[in-house]
Amino acid sequence: MTSRIPVPDGSDFPLANLPYGVIDAGEGPRLAVAIGDHAIDLRVAAGVGLLPHGAALSAPTLNPFLALGRTAWLETRIALTELLTTDRFDRLPGGAVQARAGLSMVRPFDPGDFVDFYSSIHHAANLGSLFRPGTEPLNPNWRHLPVAYHGRSSSIVVSGTPVRRPRGQVRPGEAPPHTAPTTALDFELEVGFITGPGNALGDSISADSAADHIFGLVLVNDWSARDIQRWEYVPLGPFLGKSFATTVSPWVVTLEALSPYLVPGVPQDPEPVEYLRTRGDWALDLELEVTLQPHGAAAGQVVTRTNFAGNYWTMAQQLAHVTINGTNVRPGDLYASGTISGPTRGSEGSLIELTRNGAEPLRLGDGTERTFLRDGDTVTLRGWCQRPGLPRLGFGECTGMVLPAT
Amino acid sequence: MTSRIPVPDGSDFPLANLPYGVIDAGEGPRLAVAIGDHAIDLRVAAGVGLLPHGAALSAPTLNPFLALGRTAWLETRIALTELLTTDRFDRLPGGAVQARAGLSMVRPFDPGDFVDFYSSIHHAANLGSLFRPGTEPLNPNWRHLPVAYHGRSSSIVVSGTPVRRPRGQVRPGEAPPHTAPTTALDFELEVGFITGPGNALGDSISADSAADHIFGLVLVNDWSARDIQRWEYVPLGPFLGKSFATTVSPWVVTLEALSPYLVPGVPQDPEPVEYLRTRGDWALDLELEVTLQPHGAAAGQVVTRTNFAGNYWTMAQQLAHVTINGTNVRPGDLYASGTISGPTRGSEGSLIELTRNGAEPLRLGDGTERTFLRDGDTVTLRGWCQRPGLPRLGFGECTGMVLPAT
Repeated sequence: MTSRIPVPDGSDFPLANLPYGVIDAGEGPRLAVAIGDHAIDLRVAAGVGLLPHGAALSAPTLNPFLALGRTAWLETRIALTELLTTDRFDRLPGGAVQARAGLSMVRPFDPGDFVDFYSSIHHAANLGSLFRPGTEPLNPNWRHLPVAYHGRSSSIVVSGTPVRRPRGQVRPGEAPPHTAPTTALDFELEVGFITGPGNALGDSISADSAADHIFGLVLVNDWSARDIQRWEYVPLGPFLGKSFATTVSPWVVTLEALSPYLVPGVPQDPEPVEYLRTRGDWALDLELEVTLQPHGAAAGQVVTRTNFAGNYWTMAQQLAHVTINGTNVRPGDLYASGTISGPTRGSEGSLIELTRNGAEPLRLGDGTERTFLRDGDTVTLRGWCQRPGLPRLGFGECTGMVLPAT
Repeated sequence: MTSRIPVPDGSDFPLANLPYGVIDAGEGPRLAVAIGDHAIDLRVAAGVGLLPHGAALSAPTLNPFLALGRTAWLETRIALTELLTTDRFDRLPGGAVQARAGLSMVRPFDPGDFVDFYSSIHHAANLGSLFRPGTEPLNPNWRHLPVAYHGRSSSIVVSGTPVRRPRGQVRPGEAPPHTAPTTALDFELEVGFITGPGNALGDSISADSAADHIFGLVLVNDWSARDIQRWEYVPLGPFLGKSFATTVSPWVVTLEALSPYLVPGVPQDPEPVEYLRTRGDWALDLELEVTLQPHGAAAGQVVTRTNFAGNYWTMAQQLAHVTINGTNVRPGDLYASGTISGPTRGSEGSLIELTRNGAEPLRLGDGTERTFLRDGDTVTLRGWCQRPGLPRLGFGECTGMVLPAT
């Protein structure tokens, strides 16, 4: 099958991908699907009867479509593929296909709850060593359940939105605390999943039915102010050190498109309790990298490379955990992985790990050093799946530039 | 001034109160204001021109009205008072006044973010002693900032909704963890404020402008499963031990109605940093009590009595803290106080404190004992303001019955 819209070599968005986003070409937010360098306006396509579920596809956010559930998602994927590969394409009105280069992107979903996990064993061990030196880096519960906390929904922004350096209360050393712009602004490389229909309050979602509830995935930069976080986080967890901004990539890559790239997860020892046991493959072979581009630099420079498949706890386990107590999941919730760090130097998903809390600064191509982010720095996350015999699927960019504090 | 709708002696809802709720009399959710034993349908009243802001008052949730801001809230309060005390009342259509006894109540606001503070010094010290015996009960940051975490928005339910006993992973002693219904189900007596217009991402709300952003208050029962909480909460804070249900009272009592009952807060030592300093009175002289009614008992029995004015951190300080880093607040967010405990025995706001973690069980009138809640127990929070020369204003009930685990 060939797409009627040409797909450049190496594009993140071949026919096998078909990720969903929300575009704004001046007529307000519209659902769209990306193909190569173009986007298809789903409201227009559904309006002429070329796609099912026209009401949901005409909404300004993905949430109504997420609520429809997996059968509707599959029907729409089949219809989109047919539209792009057959003479049905000729029935598309002129305005239905837009060049992506000229489009503004809007946050594609309205997040209800935002949960951030802590599911990379390397990240948890690294942070444990830095924040609690001299103790066992992994807490006793870590290998028994996917530790998580609720994050801030209001400040989830789409890729491209500048991020203002936050102010907050800090206490370096034993002097009285004071209020200042953070001097320890960091990124966190994460991947998040966005939920579909969800469950009624009081019910649970089993790990085996996770695929009915996970619509798709985005890249997530969980910006963090380490000095604010360090002073505030005992005993109730991270709050203002994280809540000022969380950036998501604009195109939601569906679980359906990603399913050929699912692989066995890492071995878990001890075996988890019953509700956390899964069948089938739930780790995702997703290559990840982060670039840092100083203000005025011609290009970004890769500062970390890792792979999502190394995470200890999988998405199916995370969803089963969230709902084991009867908590209700709603369409458009965001469940992020926590920082994804690999086992080797250069594969850590945050600056605090890459620089050993500043002890080993990064040297950049422009001759400057970084322990934490400077004003004007642009951080960009990228991710792609590539396996023998399968097309390369990408996530596009998740990017943001640091603005000075007010 | 006398209300044209008679108000029984001792009613929570005299003319000076006028709290907002959402009723359902079979025609779907409608905004309403309570007066005595009745409720006024605001859509009907606005529909005949007796109230301003008809579009917002005709919505199925308070959120659009919250977004209008304080001037609109004051205009509506003045119009409501005039409607209830003058011959304008005669212009109300028949269906506009409903007996409250026959109404279903709906959750009055759609919560965006839900933040739970930890602002009672007696509660923080009690829990510190129970969860971290042998250490200083207050953490070093506690007197410097209002410690808080993000809670679950999806499971905020209106008073009267039964609460299913949650299951979860627990680890009593050193045996391997297992999954079971909680055996340590607790209530937490809290008061929460609901926000109005809010701020743009990157801006802050000063403590001095808090009154422009706090629409009103509700009683909050932050149900907690102590065994699940204890095993999961290090290092990222409470998660599944809290997320299964949070109950709010159905009538939002406005800050405007409560302002005569604001009193000076407790002395703070050390003096807080600049952004947490307030002018004027921000503590609320609100009497609080909790009753526990076993299944089949004729009535509930008071198990704790305390007063909200004893909390260390005030609402204005909490709102300034949340936004000091530029986090955006939205209409309908819920900011809860954390458990409100007094300094004396019998004034603690949770069973874990009242029973010293089960060491001193409560004896109930029916001869049974409680360390934690049993299936069939009904927990009811009540609150009221009463000061010399002022009318008594109440919050109504915040109640829920425990259902057995599935």
